[in-house]
Amino acid sequence: MTKNIKLNMSRRIRRTPYTNRVEEHGVSDFTVVNHMLLPKGFKNSVEEDYWHLSKEVQIWDVSCQRQVQISGPDAAALIQKLTPRSIKTMETGKCFYIPMLNENAGMINDPVLLKLDDDMFWVSIADSDILLWAKGYALGLNLDVNIEEPDVYPLAIQGPKSEDLLVSIFGEEIKKIKFFNFRVVDFEGTKQVIARSGYSKQDGFEIYFKVHEKYFDKVEMGEKLWDTIWEAGKKFNISPGCPNLIDRIEGGLMSYGNDFTGENNPLECNLEKYCKDDVSHDFIGKQALSKIKNEGIKQKMMGIIFDGDPCPSIGQPLQVLSKDNKKIGQITSGIFSPRIKKNIGLSMILKEYWNVGESVFIQTLDGGKRNGTITSLPFPD
Amino acid sequence: MTKNIKLNMSRRIRRTPYTNRVEEHGVSDFTVVNHMLLPKGFKNSVEEDYWHLSKEVQIWDVSCQRQVQISGPDAAALIQKLTPRSIKTMETGKCFYIPMLNENAGMINDPVLLKLDDDMFWVSIADSDILLWAKGYALGLNLDVNIEEPDVYPLAIQGPKSEDLLVSIFGEEIKKIKFFNFRVVDFEGTKQVIARSGYSKQDGFEIYFKVHEKYFDKVEMGEKLWDTIWEAGKKFNISPGCPNLIDRIEGGLMSYGNDFTGENNPLECNLEKYCKDDVSHDFIGKQALSKIKNEGIKQKMMGIIFDGDPCPSIGQPLQVLSKDNKKIGQITSGIFSPRIKKNIGLSMILKEYWNVGESVFIQTLDGGKRNGTITSLPFPD
Repeated sequence: MTKNIKLNMSRRIRRTPYTNRVEEHGVSDFTVVNHMLLPKGFKNSVEEDYWHLSKEVQIWDVSCQRQVQISGPDAAALIQKLTPRSIKTMETGKCFYIPMLNENAGMINDPVLLKLDDDMFWVSIADSDILLWAKGYALGLNLDVNIEEPDVYPLAIQGPKSEDLLVSIFGEEIKKIKFFNFRVVDFEGTKQVIARSGYSKQDGFEIYFKVHEKYFDKVEMGEKLWDTIWEAGKKFNISPGCPNLIDRIEGGLMSYGNDFTGENNPLECNLEKYCKDDVSHDFIGKQALSKIKNEGIKQKMMGIIFDGDPCPSIGQPLQVLSKDNKKIGQITSGIFSPRIKKNIGLSMILKEYWNVGESVFIQTLDGGKRNGTITSLPFPD
Repeated sequence: MTKNIKLNMSRRIRRTPYTNRVEEHGVSDFTVVNHMLLPKGFKNSVEEDYWHLSKEVQIWDVSCQRQVQISGPDAAALIQKLTPRSIKTMETGKCFYIPMLNENAGMINDPVLLKLDDDMFWVSIADSDILLWAKGYALGLNLDVNIEEPDVYPLAIQGPKSEDLLVSIFGEEIKKIKFFNFRVVDFEGTKQVIARSGYSKQDGFEIYFKVHEKYFDKVEMGEKLWDTIWEAGKKFNISPGCPNLIDRIEGGLMSYGNDFTGENNPLECNLEKYCKDDVSHDFIGKQALSKIKNEGIKQKMMGIIFDGDPCPSIGQPLQVLSKDNKKIGQITSGIFSPRIKKNIGLSMILKEYWNVGESVFIQTLDGGKRNGTITSLPFPD
């Protein structure tokens, strides 16, 4: 129904330094993340983009992964309060995935933390205003920190040829960047952070492109970066892309706001490894999380494989029913996998139905029913 | 360029209890506010909707005006910390427009506050996560408050016939509701808050439709409310609508994220009446605001009238130049006014150019120049 609705453009839905380029490449649709445009498709189908991503290299405008820069004497102490994951042993140059909880242990974001220095961090956020959260909390505690959104516009280079492409531009040093580490490279006289990371299950990098808008035109410099990568990428068969729904679901990569919200705790999201029992530090939601651990969770994120024609996802979750027609979950992200040759989806599932191989029904939006099976995540190869 | 781009739907971009109805009425485009769909157009043009709004009555899905419910013993104290406007004399049943500032006196939202009781408030927010801001701050200060987003989905009834329409449904009591006051009425056995307010310069009401999702199906009840109003509205020539860009700009109603951002202080936004010098209470940004007052502001929001063909607004501000081609502002919201028969826009303007009647140039996106004039707000009748 809501498939061909236009997005009304306004200044509030912020453009990025790459939006002109993305438009020139024929972007077909956008979504909005952190008050900023995120491309969601180009000329090819999601399936064509999926195959291309798995074999070649793509350039993605992920500027909407806004950075919350936390610096100053109390920076590390504040960050430690904002997540159950310990950052005690975190070294400069590392990226940490850090769930963030509210006082009820509900998930309010699942950002990647970059440690730039002992007193300087970037929090690369999903879609909620963590700038306001961190700032409000720091003001209340009267901490000695500075919190701002710097002029950083991440550009992702994803796919198996991404290393070769970036080596051809930035040199052999790129090869030394391990997964979830970053290095600082030079681009046109500016220092740029490049991390080995990205929202796909392929190899890839994220360039945390930063210019100080006082000295540089961000669009001019951003387009220079885009064009440099695009030109060098031609021999690697580069194409414009964006987070790919098939790749993401197959890889079991969750999306904040889609697959989990503030109503969910990190244990339901399979994030217990970031919430260890022996955590010695204090953090927001600690007491609530401890209570949830003791009582045990009632549902958690599982994979679903189901039959039938390709089942489009248009923003309304499909219900998951047990064989005796009890509602046991809802598919919050779903799509047809051309590799598995079935529909796949992510769903919180009630505890009694966690067995891999459990048979279920999926209720489609037109009221029909399809046969499905519970599986583990990521989806089996 | 970016005029026919689709909005990619997902669960993260939340539907409202009225989205089905809005789709049935042929919504043409949406925007996203507070992670929720806001309709931005139907079958008629913005101009047709403008004339209709000025003469008849419209029903708007403004569910995206999310409520931040702050309750508990410290609720009033917390709210007072969040705004320069004093709420000391505020009575239950009142609505207050309250600018919210960060520590630098930058605007982070401009919500409407509803006082439901001495220890119970709703903050009806523009597009930023004030839930996180208020909660973070309260946690840091260890205040005794409860902060949540209740199941409230505002529905606006706007236009000169809105009073007659609502009287026909809820009775004569509607007439007693003064501007920026609310009353509680009964609907299908539930209590509903109706305020005389709305994001237009016409008369109008906002129904803060609330159901507890535990006991009611919000879509079913929401559609019942919509249908009740729609049926009763037929004899008043009701049509589906949304905040109208012509009406809004003519009325000088600013939009957070469009016309001002965290980079702007409330004085630049003509909000000095909510920031009185004799303010005795403490609030976030007080010190910074005081400094700005002493130094004086360098720019403020003015109206611009300019010549030429209807000048579409597609999300990229048009530059305002002085007669000697100095950059003195940018039009952040602009459209052709069929009443004034010229283009009109809102722009922060440098201090030396605040004289009403000052001649300026407007630079269009294709590089052309048009003659314009500075004017006061709201635009003169």
